[in-house]
Amino acid sequence: MSHFIEIKVRGYHLDLYRHVNNARYLEFLEEARWSLLEGKTTLDYLQNNGYAFVVVNININYRCAASMDDILAISTSVQSIGNRSCRMQQRVMRKASDVVIADADVTFVIVDTHTEKAAPLEGELRAMLERLMN
Amino acid sequence: MSHFIEIKVRGYHLDLYRHVNNARYLEFLEEARWSLLEGKTTLDYLQNNGYAFVVVNININYRCAASMDDILAISTSVQSIGNRSCRMQQRVMRKASDVVIADADVTFVIVDTHTEKAAPLEGELRAMLERLMN
Amino acid sequence: MSHFIEIKVRGYHLDLYRHVNNARYLEFLEEARWSLLEGKTTLDYLQNNGYAFVVVNININYRCAASMDDILAISTSVQSIGNRSCRMQQRVMRKASDVVIADADVTFVIVDTHTEKAAPLEGELRAMLERLMN
Amino acid sequence: MSHFIEIKVRGYHLDLYRHVNNARYLEFLEEARWSLLEGKTTLDYLQNNGYAFVVVNININYRCAASMDDILAISTSVQSIGNRSCRMQQRVMRKASDVVIADADVTFVIVDTHTEKAAPLEGELRAMLERLMN
Repeated sequence: MSHFIEIKVRGYHLDLYRHVNNARYLEFLEEARWSLLEGKTTLDYLQNNGYAFVVVNININYRCAASMDDILAISTSVQSIGNRSCRMQQRVMRKASDVVIADADVTFVIVDTHTEKAAPLEGELRAMLERLMN
Repeated sequence: MSHFIEIKVRGYHLDLYRHVNNARYLEFLEEARWSLLEGKTTLDYLQNNGYAFVVVNININYRCAASMDDILAISTSVQSIGNRSCRMQQRVMRKASDVVIADADVTFVIVDTHTEKAAPLEGELRAMLERLMN
Repeated sequence: MSHFIEIKVRGYHLDLYRHVNNARYLEFLEEARWSLLEGKTTLDYLQNNGYAFVVVNININYRCAASMDDILAISTSVQSIGNRSCRMQQRVMRKASDVVIADADVTFVIVDTHTEKAAPLEGELRAMLERLMN
Repeated sequence: MSHFIEIKVRGYHLDLYRHVNNARYLEFLEEARWSLLEGKTTLDYLQNNGYAFVVVNININYRCAASMDDILAISTSVQSIGNRSCRMQQRVMRKASDVVIADADVTFVIVDTHTEKAAPLEGELRAMLERLMN
């Protein structure tokens, strides 16, 4: 099952067009990822082992504008796990209506801060990511 | 020729890892697009005709981290023009070394604010976009 | 009684020093004010009557740094109501320890968007603000 | 003489009211302070000696709204130097008209990162701050 958070759209999220600004969605998505990671003690594991979560690609579709007072439901789940990178899918919906506001594929690596390189996704690290799959 | 702007990385651009945050790059790219549009009076044309520039997709690769005091050179150019959407390429380089920090394909439509629909990219509108091509 | 919200500190809230950035606190305070206003239907009243909530002064003390994973509790209450301006007090505490992270006096006016002027704080408008007092 | 920078207001700086958001001004002010500090090699001195520039109070007046395409001129100068804290004055003007958009007193300390305490502002440190006075 996907992980969900909710964010209510406030005045400071909007821009010239009085819609949520493109860049702000990336903060919403990051908020959702931290929430996912902390929810299963994944974050503690990463921090205690000198791993950093590093995004290498975001492919985001802006499908519909979000406006003041909209309540957004953001789902996040791991979609696929490769040898050294992993892909999450995140979706932003307007809660009242299930309209898709935006969806994104987010590809990340787990950097070993000792070697400064992407860690191979095997063993305990892989198991941890598998627990975050849909 | 591409359009260029420069941004110097400051303390408030950074995040937990002391690197420029993912979301912040989208503000840098937006800054570069406004600069491109105003530079050839494109922006005046759009605003005077009730057109809004609306991004529908951003596909961004984060290739290398940017840190405090880095000077970033951001290039922007129109890559291809379809019937109703258009694609720009934007690239963020570390100026001192020509290292690519990030690159992005940005797909946008020109919304006619009278009809709330994507305008067909023909006539004067298309000519204007063609002048922004590489 | 004061109104409270909680915000958990995430990676994108931090800056060069790995502390929550000065500017970000103003978003936290704005979030808390929207939450206060909507909680007592104040926001509906303002929006339906063409009133805009406009901040004219913020005096903020940064007393202690907030770091990754801190849970912040933000209290907001109306402190005093003048003829045309009103002052709120907002305080950001680290929830686990009651350490004061920041506190701010926020002075605002209610602009009548028809006249573009600060509305006199009397009658229903004043009563509404009095209900937000500590 | 004051130090000046210019910032052009873009779509992503605005909020619900289509004016520059309160929090964003604090980023503009921080940008101006970094620019002042680097301009006289103050920043190198601080970084090389393990000093961090830490803001302890900002008192900002929002006097007039700034809108899309406004060019803002931001002046910064040191106003007074105490034993352990120092006060800057920063002013944001609309360049075309000299209208004051916002002004702020910013009080900061220089934290010695070895002791984690505010350094006494004497000797070379004080001389450096004196060179930044109006």
